[in-house]
Amino acid sequence: MKEKLMKMLEEREEEIIQIRRYLHENPELSFKEEKTAKYIEDFYKGKDVEVQTNVGNGYGIIVTITGAKAGKTIGLRADFDALPIVEETPVPFKSKNEGVMHACGHDGHTAYLLVLADCLIQLKSELAGTIKIIHQHAEEVPPGGAKSIVESGLLDDLDEVYGIHLLPMGPAGLVGYHAGFSFNGRAYMKLTIQGRGGHGSSPHLANDAIVAGAHFVTAVQTIISRRLSPFEIGVITIGSFDGKGTFNVIKDSVELEGDIRYMTVETKEKIEKEVKRIVKGLEEEFGVTCELTYETDYPPLYNNPELTAKVAETLKNANDPHIKEVREFPALAPSEDFAYYAEKFPACFFYIGCTPEGEEDPYFNHHPKFDIDEASLLVAAKAVGQVVCSLQE
Amino acid sequence: MKEKLMKMLEEREEEIIQIRRYLHENPELSFKEEKTAKYIEDFYKGKDVEVQTNVGNGYGIIVTITGAKAGKTIGLRADFDALPIVEETPVPFKSKNEGVMHACGHDGHTAYLLVLADCLIQLKSELAGTIKIIHQHAEEVPPGGAKSIVESGLLDDLDEVYGIHLLPMGPAGLVGYHAGFSFNGRAYMKLTIQGRGGHGSSPHLANDAIVAGAHFVTAVQTIISRRLSPFEIGVITIGSFDGKGTFNVIKDSVELEGDIRYMTVETKEKIEKEVKRIVKGLEEEFGVTCELTYETDYPPLYNNPELTAKVAETLKNANDPHIKEVREFPALAPSEDFAYYAEKFPACFFYIGCTPEGEEDPYFNHHPKFDIDEASLLVAAKAVGQVVCSLQE
Amino acid sequence: MKEKLMKMLEEREEEIIQIRRYLHENPELSFKEEKTAKYIEDFYKGKDVEVQTNVGNGYGIIVTITGAKAGKTIGLRADFDALPIVEETPVPFKSKNEGVMHACGHDGHTAYLLVLADCLIQLKSELAGTIKIIHQHAEEVPPGGAKSIVESGLLDDLDEVYGIHLLPMGPAGLVGYHAGFSFNGRAYMKLTIQGRGGHGSSPHLANDAIVAGAHFVTAVQTIISRRLSPFEIGVITIGSFDGKGTFNVIKDSVELEGDIRYMTVETKEKIEKEVKRIVKGLEEEFGVTCELTYETDYPPLYNNPELTAKVAETLKNANDPHIKEVREFPALAPSEDFAYYAEKFPACFFYIGCTPEGEEDPYFNHHPKFDIDEASLLVAAKAVGQVVCSLQE
Amino acid sequence: MKEKLMKMLEEREEEIIQIRRYLHENPELSFKEEKTAKYIEDFYKGKDVEVQTNVGNGYGIIVTITGAKAGKTIGLRADFDALPIVEETPVPFKSKNEGVMHACGHDGHTAYLLVLADCLIQLKSELAGTIKIIHQHAEEVPPGGAKSIVESGLLDDLDEVYGIHLLPMGPAGLVGYHAGFSFNGRAYMKLTIQGRGGHGSSPHLANDAIVAGAHFVTAVQTIISRRLSPFEIGVITIGSFDGKGTFNVIKDSVELEGDIRYMTVETKEKIEKEVKRIVKGLEEEFGVTCELTYETDYPPLYNNPELTAKVAETLKNANDPHIKEVREFPALAPSEDFAYYAEKFPACFFYIGCTPEGEEDPYFNHHPKFDIDEASLLVAAKAVGQVVCSLQE
Repeated sequence: MKEKLMKMLEEREEEIIQIRRYLHENPELSFKEEKTAKYIEDFYKGKDVEVQTNVGNGYGIIVTITGAKAGKTIGLRADFDALPIVEETPVPFKSKNEGVMHACGHDGHTAYLLVLADCLIQLKSELAGTIKIIHQHAEEVPPGGAKSIVESGLLDDLDEVYGIHLLPMGPAGLVGYHAGFSFNGRAYMKLTIQGRGGHGSSPHLANDAIVAGAHFVTAVQTIISRRLSPFEIGVITIGSFDGKGTFNVIKDSVELEGDIRYMTVETKEKIEKEVKRIVKGLEEEFGVTCELTYETDYPPLYNNPELTAKVAETLKNANDPHIKEVREFPALAPSEDFAYYAEKFPACFFYIGCTPEGEEDPYFNHHPKFDIDEASLLVAAKAVGQVVCSLQE
Repeated sequence: MKEKLMKMLEEREEEIIQIRRYLHENPELSFKEEKTAKYIEDFYKGKDVEVQTNVGNGYGIIVTITGAKAGKTIGLRADFDALPIVEETPVPFKSKNEGVMHACGHDGHTAYLLVLADCLIQLKSELAGTIKIIHQHAEEVPPGGAKSIVESGLLDDLDEVYGIHLLPMGPAGLVGYHAGFSFNGRAYMKLTIQGRGGHGSSPHLANDAIVAGAHFVTAVQTIISRRLSPFEIGVITIGSFDGKGTFNVIKDSVELEGDIRYMTVETKEKIEKEVKRIVKGLEEEFGVTCELTYETDYPPLYNNPELTAKVAETLKNANDPHIKEVREFPALAPSEDFAYYAEKFPACFFYIGCTPEGEEDPYFNHHPKFDIDEASLLVAAKAVGQVVCSLQE
Repeated sequence: MKEKLMKMLEEREEEIIQIRRYLHENPELSFKEEKTAKYIEDFYKGKDVEVQTNVGNGYGIIVTITGAKAGKTIGLRADFDALPIVEETPVPFKSKNEGVMHACGHDGHTAYLLVLADCLIQLKSELAGTIKIIHQHAEEVPPGGAKSIVESGLLDDLDEVYGIHLLPMGPAGLVGYHAGFSFNGRAYMKLTIQGRGGHGSSPHLANDAIVAGAHFVTAVQTIISRRLSPFEIGVITIGSFDGKGTFNVIKDSVELEGDIRYMTVETKEKIEKEVKRIVKGLEEEFGVTCELTYETDYPPLYNNPELTAKVAETLKNANDPHIKEVREFPALAPSEDFAYYAEKFPACFFYIGCTPEGEEDPYFNHHPKFDIDEASLLVAAKAVGQVVCSLQE
Repeated sequence: MKEKLMKMLEEREEEIIQIRRYLHENPELSFKEEKTAKYIEDFYKGKDVEVQTNVGNGYGIIVTITGAKAGKTIGLRADFDALPIVEETPVPFKSKNEGVMHACGHDGHTAYLLVLADCLIQLKSELAGTIKIIHQHAEEVPPGGAKSIVESGLLDDLDEVYGIHLLPMGPAGLVGYHAGFSFNGRAYMKLTIQGRGGHGSSPHLANDAIVAGAHFVTAVQTIISRRLSPFEIGVITIGSFDGKGTFNVIKDSVELEGDIRYMTVETKEKIEKEVKRIVKGLEEEFGVTCELTYETDYPPLYNNPELTAKVAETLKNANDPHIKEVREFPALAPSEDFAYYAEKFPACFFYIGCTPEGEEDPYFNHHPKFDIDEASLLVAAKAVGQVVCSLQE
């Protein structure tokens, strides 16, 4: 079956590219992917599969391909939302939806997976087990689509789940993998520090919220520098210190907002506990009243080491002219809501090199000039296809 | 002459009150006191004095009363601008100019001085020396009117200068004085800290301006706590920390604004030097670029001790039924541009109690409900009149 | 009686000087003034007075001189302890007790008061009221002698109490006074911050007490810079940060010691409350355990304004060739346990100029080269004598 | 040759253990290993090898085994110094040198390598290439022995160098490896901050070194929290803050000492640059004078990835009953002067599990109760032997 599948994919490369271009031209923002979802739904029309739409908290779609033989139930996930970015690439299939852009490669993810799904549908009679194609909405904006799809219960029978991300960390042909924690988890905090305003010349009659806020910013650094192990990954950025006021009036309150990143659940919990501790201490220390909103967001993404080792081995031994190199990648700073699948099921999320040919210093995902080498799309399809086939044995 | 003057003032008390009410009803903002200046000019029309208008950087008026006999040249100053405050008092002569209010007593200052000036004009034949009546515009808003009036050169021949302020620190009948530094000097600072923006998850690729700003706020406290003598008066308020941004983007720059107060020229210089030193240190310490605007504003107001002692003695011995108590007041936190006159000439600026009768906890100057006991206006006129007479001897 | 007293004092000037030199040669440390007390006791032997020894928590002596006529009961206090300083003056009557020195002028205080007391004893028949001569031990070392003498109850009948201090703030002949709060009150703090030790390379397994201590030092600055009025006098010095350890071992605990000064009871209470608040906040913020010792020491010294005004007037009008100038002094930074008398009784503590003749930049009290113009001793005796006589009327 | 070597080693297991016990009983401190060096020298006496003694800055010994055939020149290193620790183990061959203990396993390193060397000498006729046995002194105390041995030039012809460390991170039979940076590099800093002393009540006349020191401690945290990538490993511990003084005297100077760790040369340079920058900023900000000693110590230890991969593969395929498991270890927080060899030559330093049988929570290296399962010694010998043999091919 593997050879057949690979051949089919090769033959449909152009189709994958055309789908990707269509999606690229018609991007939609997270939770608003109505037309994209319709396009996907239409793609499966008339095909011998079960299609569930409006899954989770948005336009999520699950397509179930039931093989003729017994076997594992495998999830394959691709996301399909775009970003609020004004596209600045020179491509002829530039976004027609001004201010919205497929700047993260989700167009490519969806394109390869549609075609791969179709091929697998055609190979159903040879297929052992069940493939659940997960077309996911809203990856870019918390709370994301993944959590609600997992919670829908429709995936409860999954044995394993896989996904890929296009990354310009190498040319088309390169596949990267990383076992264990691979993408950062994320939390959001908002802290309102309420002091008491007053005239600048009489600090004793007021309680300066800016001074308390400055101490908070300083104290919070010690969580990273002294509370985490040097081998632990964590970041706290206070990205907003809103203390705008009048130069000679003591500020009554300030509002701070921050972004927290971590690579393990243990680090996540440690940071949250410490932030809360510092906030409580600040209230006592400066006699201010604090209101803290602390919301955990996507968890750290954990790639099951055995699965990842098997994926790496499968691809290294694939002997496929399109899969030219397979190597370990470092863990990555951003966050990914594929992490929710990986929390519940053994999972492997891996990377497809897509640096445009001849580009030494490519624009990264989320940049208005982000672009891909479309040859990477076939690599994605074949790599995931290889993995699916390896599970047949 | 003293008895004559006192009697004249007593007889014109009602007129003083009516002038004050007229001014109160028609307040004008600093540098925009066109009608008020016209009113004052009209007051002197036909009187035997020299009137100079449009003095300095606004509507300042200097009225010169030349006595028949030789003597000192004395300045008497009253300010006439109002504040951008929506009046909340219940008085029938409430501001007709919505959003502008005589909430600092300048209406009363001007009212008493007009009538006192008129009396002195009538007494010219008995008067030794010259009286320069200084009707000053724009006391409330830096750079103020005083500096430019001093710089006009029209007062260069002054031997001494006097002024008063209505303060609800006691009932009508109370006169306060303070020798030496009496009102705070003031400076303004704006500090732009330029770091480098970046993604919240990658602090090493950015340079967090909020962290540097927080260290500045913290470091600046040590100027007050460790650089000043405990007997020295100084305040640094960072009233604005404008670091509003996006929670997950490292802030590239922040803008801080502050208000600095001090009671002596030595303290003024010390604080300025230290702020500049900390800014320079901050640049090195955090690798940021700082732009500092540091503008000194009204200087500390220095009451000449000999003059003040003489004023206190004169008033204590005045044996005047309206001047019921004369006592030392503490130095005061606000700033006053009378300080510019006092920088150049021996000066005494003293205080006229004006707490409304029966009021235990009066509203202070600059409050929307600030009100005065109008009996204080005659006290002001007589107290300044007493001082003028004492200089005749 | 006043003229008689002044004459007697003038005639015994040399005796005062000789007593002072004897005491200077034989200094004793606080609470160890056995021989000094014996010397004072012997001085009164055979005289018609009541002498109480071992008063309070040391060698305190109270001598009661009962006048023939009715009148007020007045306390006159002089202290007699010396300091642990190696004398570096060139005087021939240098300390014979190596390492102990009368470097604060207490030798002079005691010398003048002994002779003044003797004169008053001789004038008993003319004296109205009672004079209690308070020879006080241990002024230099908290808890001091004054508190215990007050608590002894032996002074409970005092109407007023007076004392002086030799200060090189002007020549012999100058007398200074200051109404209201005049010497700082003082508190002592010791803070032990208990974290958890560990290897320098693994901060997450430890809790760094040095980092918490540094934050305490920084936070405590804001009490002075933001909690006190700019017109309020207060100092917090952390004089000891004992965090000596091994460079690569995270410090488990640090011990900080500090000195707190304030000029009013209100400031004293505010600072104590804020220090305790910050300590509590620190525990929460850094997860450390703190042990705080906070001991208030000598209170701020409050000179009764009426008494002080009367003293100033008496001395200004004394028409005494030795009292050449009487003027207001500023409040002073050090602390004085005369404050305990002044807490309980109307009191006036004033200053006797003693700058050695020809000295422009004199060594101050507590310096190994501190010296006085002995002419100041007669000034002290006469000034206090004048005050006593003024109370007879 | 491999089978022969493995058999020889198995037969001499008891001898290895006896040597290790002898060394354990006779530990010597770094740079003082005179008898240990003599013991090693004696071991080689009469054997057909070249022995160089007193190599480098101490008792280093290099033994050169020249094979009969051409081949690579390989270094094998074992260290032989002990620690200043009072042994607390119950073993019958406990240290006879009270206060000195082989608590880091160097006794075992030396024991296995002596016997392995002897076996290789006996196999010289079959051996391709040259083996340089490096018996290294003084690993525990900077500057260490390795640097000077490398600088001696005696190893200039090495093609590769290997070493192992006994670690109780698993049972005897476990071998661990880690490619790339594997042990932290280290630097030492001493910072003297010179302010100006003074009386606690007069901060303006002094310059408080404790306040400046506290700001340094706080500022330095931001290097870790904001200057390093979250994926970068770095620690700064200020282990000593020597600011002991008198509570009421402003501290004139403080001395801070710190320990810096990092896993790459890039991080090393970044931290050093930032510490120096902060020190310079501190001088400006607080007007203090700083003296900074910053000494880099052992570099990060870099295991050549190709060599490490080959070692891992060799041992995984060894099919040796004593080498039961071969797996990746994490990078480790401590420092190792093997790093100096690895700076100059392709190197692999790997780990030999030695947890005593039945021990769940073993004492780690440097603990007074540190102990090993002696079965690990044969594993060490065989593992290194396997590696040597693999290089023959």
